[in-house]
Amino acid sequence: MSIVTVRFRSEALGKHTSFNVIHPEAGPGPYPVLLQLHSYSDDSYSWLYGSNLARHAGEYPMIVILPDGGTSRYLNLATHDRFGLQRYEDQMMRDIPAEVNRLFHVRDGAWAIGGLSMGGYGALRLGMKHPERFASIWAHSAGLRPLDEAFLGLLDDPADASVDGWAERLAEAGSGTGPRISFDCGVDDDLLRYNRELDAHLTRIGLDHYYAEHPGAHTWDYWDEHVREALRQHAEVLGVVSVDS
Amino acid sequence: MSIVTVRFRSEALGKHTSFNVIHPEAGPGPYPVLLQLHSYSDDSYSWLYGSNLARHAGEYPMIVILPDGGTSRYLNLATHDRFGLQRYEDQMMRDIPAEVNRLFHVRDGAWAIGGLSMGGYGALRLGMKHPERFASIWAHSAGLRPLDEAFLGLLDDPADASVDGWAERLAEAGSGTGPRISFDCGVDDDLLRYNRELDAHLTRIGLDHYYAEHPGAHTWDYWDEHVREALRQHAEVLGVVSVDS
Amino acid sequence: MSIVTVRFRSEALGKHTSFNVIHPEAGPGPYPVLLQLHSYSDDSYSWLYGSNLARHAGEYPMIVILPDGGTSRYLNLATHDRFGLQRYEDQMMRDIPAEVNRLFHVRDGAWAIGGLSMGGYGALRLGMKHPERFASIWAHSAGLRPLDEAFLGLLDDPADASVDGWAERLAEAGSGTGPRISFDCGVDDDLLRYNRELDAHLTRIGLDHYYAEHPGAHTWDYWDEHVREALRQHAEVLGVVSVDS
Amino acid sequence: MSIVTVRFRSEALGKHTSFNVIHPEAGPGPYPVLLQLHSYSDDSYSWLYGSNLARHAGEYPMIVILPDGGTSRYLNLATHDRFGLQRYEDQMMRDIPAEVNRLFHVRDGAWAIGGLSMGGYGALRLGMKHPERFASIWAHSAGLRPLDEAFLGLLDDPADASVDGWAERLAEAGSGTGPRISFDCGVDDDLLRYNRELDAHLTRIGLDHYYAEHPGAHTWDYWDEHVREALRQHAEVLGVVSVDS
Repeated sequence: MSIVTVRFRSEALGKHTSFNVIHPEAGPGPYPVLLQLHSYSDDSYSWLYGSNLARHAGEYPMIVILPDGGTSRYLNLATHDRFGLQRYEDQMMRDIPAEVNRLFHVRDGAWAIGGLSMGGYGALRLGMKHPERFASIWAHSAGLRPLDEAFLGLLDDPADASVDGWAERLAEAGSGTGPRISFDCGVDDDLLRYNRELDAHLTRIGLDHYYAEHPGAHTWDYWDEHVREALRQHAEVLGVVSVDS
Repeated sequence: MSIVTVRFRSEALGKHTSFNVIHPEAGPGPYPVLLQLHSYSDDSYSWLYGSNLARHAGEYPMIVILPDGGTSRYLNLATHDRFGLQRYEDQMMRDIPAEVNRLFHVRDGAWAIGGLSMGGYGALRLGMKHPERFASIWAHSAGLRPLDEAFLGLLDDPADASVDGWAERLAEAGSGTGPRISFDCGVDDDLLRYNRELDAHLTRIGLDHYYAEHPGAHTWDYWDEHVREALRQHAEVLGVVSVDS
Repeated sequence: MSIVTVRFRSEALGKHTSFNVIHPEAGPGPYPVLLQLHSYSDDSYSWLYGSNLARHAGEYPMIVILPDGGTSRYLNLATHDRFGLQRYEDQMMRDIPAEVNRLFHVRDGAWAIGGLSMGGYGALRLGMKHPERFASIWAHSAGLRPLDEAFLGLLDDPADASVDGWAERLAEAGSGTGPRISFDCGVDDDLLRYNRELDAHLTRIGLDHYYAEHPGAHTWDYWDEHVREALRQHAEVLGVVSVDS
Repeated sequence: MSIVTVRFRSEALGKHTSFNVIHPEAGPGPYPVLLQLHSYSDDSYSWLYGSNLARHAGEYPMIVILPDGGTSRYLNLATHDRFGLQRYEDQMMRDIPAEVNRLFHVRDGAWAIGGLSMGGYGALRLGMKHPERFASIWAHSAGLRPLDEAFLGLLDDPADASVDGWAERLAEAGSGTGPRISFDCGVDDDLLRYNRELDAHLTRIGLDHYYAEHPGAHTWDYWDEHVREALRQHAEVLGVVSVDS
């Protein structure tokens, strides 16, 4: 695969910023796209340095975008000025897709979205909030702990941050019409309880999903292993086949 | 010179981020340091791509640090949670100096600080607020427009954002003891008026400084030319001599 | 503009390597392409750090590719093994175009080619050798000194390295059918004499070209200024108009 | 850890080039150094993207240097001109150490050296040829296939390329005085036979070493796993202790 770093201007952040791309080596495109989100404390390089994602993803004729989501949970944090902008949902949903389409040979249609921890929360929330934009979601060790008051104060509308809420709207729209939804968590992960609660909630409201637990904790060894299952689902849903098959 | 990119973890931002470094080619060190700040909408690459700073700075045995200040005006924006952190003053004054000292051969003692527009404001404010940390300040086209209410609401203490205020404290401490202070502005720059006001204010309160106006507007052609004077002052104050001399 | 770094596998070098891209910010493409070559001792970053090319080129809806040509003069140096490969002409003419077409939205048709010193030689030679591939050539301070025996020994066919030779073939094919050919040199440049000789040779053989001399020596100040004329020609020949016009 | 990219000028290559650095996050230094070499077709990013080396190495207060060795086998390929330079041994032994010492806080004394395939050959050869410079060697899946005639023609002295030869000199100097020597190979690796032959040769000449075979082939899964043992040896020999211990 080729590794591409793009430094561009994001309207949503009011500044230049960068994202990384794992670009398939084979074929002429157009390619489907996976938006793969990082965790709290990480950046656009974390999946590259912390795991073998570049190698795993290299098997698929699929563009993988690795953005920098700050510490925003991939939300639009409220600002009332052109300074201090942290409109990360807009960066993910508007600026980066526009730049990716402008630069690369991208297939029309829905993308896939994935991530770990804070990025797992981001993948579930963005994927369910924008079901017409994402055909496949896979979250690892999703950061689903209830948000505290201090953080909710950074939002224009706290309800917008709720994965449960977006799941309910999706269930109302009729299961089977939205993205394929999967998530997993390690049995020694402190976030296990919240992932189980989401699993129970989705079952209760009748939203089709796949949830799995595996040995392991909140570690890169866990994510390096289980991101391969996520890639397989994304590739299958997006209709691409492993280069090695 | 060598160009170095450092990706590290910043406590103040709660995340991994990067800065660029123009590192002198000659001599064994330890080297003095210049912290050179970018403008609104820019990032750690802007001085490298927008100007010939790498080439100009290569003449001096001095490390130039090019951080990413977001759109923060290099202030600590108020946050009440580990998410959404924008404590950029802390990144500039604590995290980056610690990382730079940990990585490179840095001479003990005060640094120099410079910048353009938002970064000119940052250089003046940080340099005057921390006079024991900076021996030389040079701001180009400083963004000195009064802050509006929306932005002041992002600060714990609006007074902390005032360049005038920090200048007054410095004047009270006795002129001649603090950093050498210089700034310039193009005569066709919309910020000219505010730079003239600062010049008048500093004169009024008796704070030694150098202020110059030149032909030109708020453009990279202007900064690419005038940053050379800034480098000469920083080198002189820090006691280093041009390699070419 | 966006700055893009691409790390890919080059067959011609038998290894992974990188090139930089100045990608226009405006419009959806497809974009015409300029291949801009560096000098001896430089690499794919030299035009970005040594000049304001990123800024100058940002005015045009044109992709600028900045490859790494090693110290090869952009020739295929002879090797008889998979180790030690330095087939740089093949990298320029085959691997990079394939990668650029695979990644980006590139307009069909001929590219432009430019460069300085060793890269000026490369631009003239590759542009004249492959007239169907390049519509516009502009060389600054071209490295046209006669090659010494040691270097000619690295080539399968020394005649292949001759700019004069390729110019003659082009003249025979009929002037006006090939690329627009321009070059310039500083009057204090040690290479001046060789550039004058090429000018005289092209005139003698009847190959249309533009040659100019300007104040200045073999310095980045010279190239930073005169690359703007080169960009104007490339844009005109490729039929693109400055964004600012 | 911090990830650092250094772009500098290498005399041995006659050009600017880059290397990557995994720099420990903890402690003030000075730090010992591991020079970790890549395989044929790879570059200074391969260990970062192909394996979890950044994460594994992050456990140790040790600087890891990831150079670009071209396709040179880390040898000085013969050239008789300033063009086409491929003096990679000189880059490894002279330019990079000088730059690393100039930039970073490096502990005096011998370094460690490692690598895979072509880089495993490089680690064994450079480590044994310069026993005063390296205290610890670990090669994975070393590229020890006999060199063919075409390649030997690129060398000033073919004997200089022989690992067996340098091992013999080391054995003559007295075992126990040189670096700790280890290597491993996968049982399904095509290079297995040559690694066994080196093991037998070292035993025959009485040079202390450790050789292991493991399940696996010439793959990144193999190297990602076994580089951890190599790091443990390097850390032990260099006298550093895992941060997690």
